[in-house]
Amino acid sequence: MSTNRLETFADGVFAIAATLLVLEIQLPGGDVGHGLRELWPSYFAYSLSFLSIGIMWVNHHVVLTFIREADRAFLFINLFLLMGIAFVPFPTEVFAEHLQKEGAREAALAYGLTFVVIAIFFQLFWQYAYRRLLRPDADRREVSGINRSYLPGVPLYVVATLVALVSATASLALFAAIALVYVSASIWGDEEAV
Amino acid sequence: MSTNRLETFADGVFAIAATLLVLEIQLPGGDVGHGLRELWPSYFAYSLSFLSIGIMWVNHHVVLTFIREADRAFLFINLFLLMGIAFVPFPTEVFAEHLQKEGAREAALAYGLTFVVIAIFFQLFWQYAYRRLLRPDADRREVSGINRSYLPGVPLYVVATLVALVSATASLALFAAIALVYVSASIWGDEEAV
Amino acid sequence: MSTNRLETFADGVFAIAATLLVLEIQLPGGDVGHGLRELWPSYFAYSLSFLSIGIMWVNHHVVLTFIREADRAFLFINLFLLMGIAFVPFPTEVFAEHLQKEGAREAALAYGLTFVVIAIFFQLFWQYAYRRLLRPDADRREVSGINRSYLPGVPLYVVATLVALVSATASLALFAAIALVYVSASIWGDEEAV
Amino acid sequence: MSTNRLETFADGVFAIAATLLVLEIQLPGGDVGHGLRELWPSYFAYSLSFLSIGIMWVNHHVVLTFIREADRAFLFINLFLLMGIAFVPFPTEVFAEHLQKEGAREAALAYGLTFVVIAIFFQLFWQYAYRRLLRPDADRREVSGINRSYLPGVPLYVVATLVALVSATASLALFAAIALVYVSASIWGDEEAV
Repeated sequence: MSTNRLETFADGVFAIAATLLVLEIQLPGGDVGHGLRELWPSYFAYSLSFLSIGIMWVNHHVVLTFIREADRAFLFINLFLLMGIAFVPFPTEVFAEHLQKEGAREAALAYGLTFVVIAIFFQLFWQYAYRRLLRPDADRREVSGINRSYLPGVPLYVVATLVALVSATASLALFAAIALVYVSASIWGDEEAV
Repeated sequence: MSTNRLETFADGVFAIAATLLVLEIQLPGGDVGHGLRELWPSYFAYSLSFLSIGIMWVNHHVVLTFIREADRAFLFINLFLLMGIAFVPFPTEVFAEHLQKEGAREAALAYGLTFVVIAIFFQLFWQYAYRRLLRPDADRREVSGINRSYLPGVPLYVVATLVALVSATASLALFAAIALVYVSASIWGDEEAV
Repeated sequence: MSTNRLETFADGVFAIAATLLVLEIQLPGGDVGHGLRELWPSYFAYSLSFLSIGIMWVNHHVVLTFIREADRAFLFINLFLLMGIAFVPFPTEVFAEHLQKEGAREAALAYGLTFVVIAIFFQLFWQYAYRRLLRPDADRREVSGINRSYLPGVPLYVVATLVALVSATASLALFAAIALVYVSASIWGDEEAV
Repeated sequence: MSTNRLETFADGVFAIAATLLVLEIQLPGGDVGHGLRELWPSYFAYSLSFLSIGIMWVNHHVVLTFIREADRAFLFINLFLLMGIAFVPFPTEVFAEHLQKEGAREAALAYGLTFVVIAIFFQLFWQYAYRRLLRPDADRREVSGINRSYLPGVPLYVVATLVALVSATASLALFAAIALVYVSASIWGDEEAV
C-alpha cells in the first residue's frame, strides 16, 4: 500500500485534534475582561498542546519521506499513534481547568502520561519504519542522524512527567521548554540536538 | 467518476468521527485523581471505537484499491456507510456513561446495533464493488480471499450484540476481542482468518 | 487557479459539517432504553441532514468536473456556499429538539430556510461555472441536461419550507422525500428527473 | 520538503476552524421563534469569522503558489499562523454572546486582538516566503503587487481593534467592511486595492 492515503487520514487526525483544542476554552460567567484574563492557563494549555501536536505532525511527515510503502503492521502502529494524538484535547482541558486549583498534580500527571504514551508509539512507528520499510535510496547518514535525534523523546517526556510529582507548574514549563527547544533546534538546522 | 474525491471525503469522515470521540470524555466534579480513575469506561469506549473506526478505514481503503471507478449508486452506498461511521460517537458516549450503571444493557445494545448496521452497509459497499466495479486486472484469487474474509463480519457483530441481552460487559469484551483478533490476523498476514 | 485546493477545502467542510451533526444528539436523563427511543426525531434529523449534505457534496463534485479552473469570484461564491453547508448542524439541532414540542413550526421554517439559502448559493455556483468557467471540451448536451436537472432545486426547497407554515412534520417529510427521490433518480441513471 | 502536505494540514485546520464556528450558536430556552431572532449577533459573528477565515485561506493558497518548497522555519511559522486560525471560534463565541450585554467592549477587543495576531503571523509567513522561498520563475511584478497588497493588513486590523475602545459595534462593523471590501476588490480584479 502506498503511503498517500495513510497521510490523508493522519493529517486529518492531526489537524482535527489540534483544532478541537479550542472547544475546551470556555469563558466563565461574570465580568468579561476579568474572565478573559483568568483564562490564561487555558491559553497556555491550548498553545502547548497545539505546538506539541504540530511537532508530532512534522516528525510524522519526516518518517514517511523515508519509507517506500506501508504494510498492515505499520498501518496499525500508525492507528495507535493517532489514537494517542486524538486523545490530547482531554488531558489539555483537565490541566487547563485545574492548574490553579486542587488536583493540579494529578492533572499534570495525566497530561504528561498522555505524551509519554504518544512518544512510545512514535518511537515504535519510527523503529518499525527504520528496520522494515526504509527506501533503498534513503541516505544512511541522514537516517542515522534522525534515529539519534528521536532517542531522547521518551526519556525527556518521562522526566517532565515525573517532575509533576513535585510541581505541576514546573512539569508543564518543562514540556513547553522541550517544545520550544525542539522548534529552535529544528529551525537552526541542528536536527540532532533533540 | 474517479475514486479520488470519494476517498478524500471518506477519509475526512473517518478521521473526524474518530477524533470527535474524545469530546465525549468529561471529567466529573470532585477529586481529580479519583475522577480520572473513574473514567476507565470512557477510555475503554474511546479506544474500542477508535480502533473499530480505524479497521473500517483500512478495509474501506482495501476495497477502493480493487475498483476502477465509482458510479452514482456506489457513491450513495458509500454515503450511507459514512452516515453509520459518523454516528459512532453517540452510542460510544452512551455506553461509556452507563457501563457501570442502570441501563448498561440498553446502552450496549445500541452500541452493538450501530456496528451491525455499519457492517451491513460495509457488506453492501463491498458486494457492489465486487460485482460491478472490479478492475479488469484485479487478482481473482486475492479478491476471492477478501470476499471470504469479509463474510463473518455481520454475523460476528450480530452475535456480539445479542450477548448484550445477557451481559453488557461480555458484549463489549467480545467487540474488543473481534477488533484485536482482526488486527493481529491482519498483521500476521493471515487475512482470511477474519 | 486549479480546482484542486478548492476541492480539498470544500471536501473538508462537507465532511466536517456532516460529522458534527452527531454532536447534537444528546441522551436525556432517566431510563436509557426510553431515552434512546425518544430520540427518534434526532436520528431522523441526523439522517436527513447527512443525506442532504452528501447530495450537495456529490453535486459540488459534478460541477467541478466541468470547469477548467477557478477564478476569485468563483472562490468566494464557493465560500458562501460552504458557509451555508457548515451552518446546517444548528437548524438540525433546533428541529430535532422541537419537532414534538411547541415551536415545531418555527424550527421547521429555520431548517427549510437554511436549505433554501444553500440551494440559491448552489444555483449561483453552478450558473457561474456554466457561463464563465466551462472546459472547452465539456459535452454540451450533458451540460444542458445538468443545467435542467438543477433548476427545480430552489423552487422545491421553497415549497417544502412554506409547507412548514401548515405542518412542520409535512415539511420535513417533504425534505426527506426530495432527498430520497434525488438519490433514486440519480442511481437509476435518470439525472434529468430532479 | 514539498508544500503538498503542508497544504493538506493547513486546509484541514482552516476547514475545521470555520466549521466548528457553528457549535457556538446555541438556541436559548423559551419561545423558538423569539430565540431564533435574538441570535442575530451569533449569525453575524458566524458569517464574519467564516468569511475572514476563508479570506485567510485564499491568501494562504496564493502564497504557496509562489514558493518552490518549504523549510523547517516556514513549517513552524505556518504552525503558529494555524494556531491563531484555530483559536478564532473562541473569541467569536465571546463576542456573539456579549455584543448586546455588558462586556461588549472587552469581547470586541479580544476578537480584534486575535485577528491582529493572525495578521502579524500572516505577514511573517508571507515575508519569509517572499525573502527566502520564492520560485525562480515567479513573476516579480506580480509578487511585488502581492507584497504591497498585504501591507495594509496589520494596520487595518489594529485600527479596527482600537475602535472597540469607543464602540464594540463600530469595531465589528469595520471588520465586516474590511472583509467585504477585500472580497469585492478581489473579485473585480483589483488585487492591489487591499
